[in-house]
Amino acid sequence: MKFVTAEHHGEMFVGVAEQDGGKIIHLRLAEQAMDQRATIPSSLLECIKQGDSFLRRTEEIVAWAKENRGAQYVYDLADVRLLAPIPRPAKNIFCIGKNYADHAMELGGKSHIPEHLIVFSKVPTTVIGHEETILRHAGVTDEVDYEGELAVVIGKQGRAIRKEEALDYVFGYTIINDVTARDLQERHEQYFLGKGLDTFCPMGPWIVHRSLIENPNKLQIETRVNGEVRQKANTEQFIFNIETIIETISRGITLEPGDIIATGTPAGVGKGMKPPRFLQAGDVVEITVEGIGTLRNTVGE
Amino acid sequence: MKFVTAEHHGEMFVGVAEQDGGKIIHLRLAEQAMDQRATIPSSLLECIKQGDSFLRRTEEIVAWAKENRGAQYVYDLADVRLLAPIPRPAKNIFCIGKNYADHAMELGGKSHIPEHLIVFSKVPTTVIGHEETILRHAGVTDEVDYEGELAVVIGKQGRAIRKEEALDYVFGYTIINDVTARDLQERHEQYFLGKGLDTFCPMGPWIVHRSLIENPNKLQIETRVNGEVRQKANTEQFIFNIETIIETISRGITLEPGDIIATGTPAGVGKGMKPPRFLQAGDVVEITVEGIGTLRNTVGE
Repeated sequence: MKFVTAEHHGEMFVGVAEQDGGKIIHLRLAEQAMDQRATIPSSLLECIKQGDSFLRRTEEIVAWAKENRGAQYVYDLADVRLLAPIPRPAKNIFCIGKNYADHAMELGGKSHIPEHLIVFSKVPTTVIGHEETILRHAGVTDEVDYEGELAVVIGKQGRAIRKEEALDYVFGYTIINDVTARDLQERHEQYFLGKGLDTFCPMGPWIVHRSLIENPNKLQIETRVNGEVRQKANTEQFIFNIETIIETISRGITLEPGDIIATGTPAGVGKGMKPPRFLQAGDVVEITVEGIGTLRNTVGE
Repeated sequence: MKFVTAEHHGEMFVGVAEQDGGKIIHLRLAEQAMDQRATIPSSLLECIKQGDSFLRRTEEIVAWAKENRGAQYVYDLADVRLLAPIPRPAKNIFCIGKNYADHAMELGGKSHIPEHLIVFSKVPTTVIGHEETILRHAGVTDEVDYEGELAVVIGKQGRAIRKEEALDYVFGYTIINDVTARDLQERHEQYFLGKGLDTFCPMGPWIVHRSLIENPNKLQIETRVNGEVRQKANTEQFIFNIETIIETISRGITLEPGDIIATGTPAGVGKGMKPPRFLQAGDVVEITVEGIGTLRNTVGE
């Protein structure tokens, strides 16, 4: 299933995007129509925390709604506004740095390929949804850059998670644009400030449940700016695969449902071009990940 | 006023510690006794979000409780368990790196004194309260180190905050121990992992309202391990003072009520000693900041 957070007539709701036909099911309203109960929370973060009971209930609702169409709870995709699937994460987004060798090299040569996992974070105030506008932050930065990434959403709490069981802790997958102010990233030594500006974490368009992704370490990923392909890679090029990332972070840090981990970006960022080509007002950035979809955002003035 | 989050007979509440006498006023219960209303939320984070109305209401309650003592809402400090004042921040804690020249030098010589603000973060799962136990994380790290720090709690939302008005955005001040696994900090390039282990952010014992701190950039700070003074400095030695920190972070990042900024640690950490002296099971770390109090934690097995 593809889980969305969306707005319809100003109300935020959790929905499921049907595989075919572009319809969105408003889970709570469909549930009420089905059996007058209301177990589905209004935020996807709360849904994920419910664990398996949420999944089972959702399957029941979606199957019922397939047979029982109703305009009150089955919407055309065109009639809703998609928000980030988790518009307000409960902590910063975990981000992996230099997780593709080609990207590490374009930023600084072979010595930049890491031997150990690099982790940093993006504040929750960076998050925007599909089709929302990335702020240019003129006067704060002159070097806004894109980074297309596969992101993992954690489904259950754990510490000291072993590689062998790591994927059981995943709820699903989405796409993140780890937008970066390169000048701030360098000037301030740690990545944090350059990664943290408002709107610098487009996320979406939805979270695809892990049952639909056979192997998250083998997905095509592509980033286009104004239609021009800039990044084209496969997550099989990860230096640290998803199991290793989860094992390494969780050694001393408890991971919790709704935690988001952006897995790093492949070669082809604007900073790596000669001369560098940073994002300008009006630029459209699209990131496509196999099995998930396309996240599209425009850069504002 | 000194704001606490505490537990009494298993119930978490927001209280005020009286200046003299060691009594804690349970704000919500006192409010109910005063005029049968209940405007005080059960979490201090929610209180801070209420802004001035919370402060005015609290002043009213505290003044009333001074005249009207009641065992249902005035407790001895000894009868409550203090929690971290904000036990579960809504995002990672902002932390400033190398903000005292002496500390930057003890870690790597003069070249380590930063020209620009260094910011990183600690996940909310690191937070523990006064007298709670710091986990040793044996098998994950061999180099657990303390860092005594003054922390700023933001009181109202803002972006592009100018230095001149920065302190108006502060709710109050508390103490943080920015516990660090030095081996992880170095091995993983970015500070994040070494700073983020569970229990690595003791905070408290309370938040002192800014009206009680005449100049936060001129406070004595001292850290003791098993009674031995290890860090002794004054926040007037900040490389970047609090106004500059707030201005710099908020240039592109919206600060929100309840955000916490740890301002960096002075010289004297275990890593800087020759040979280095890291924390061991049973060690007691006490951090005293002038005008705030003492935060004490023991290192567990």
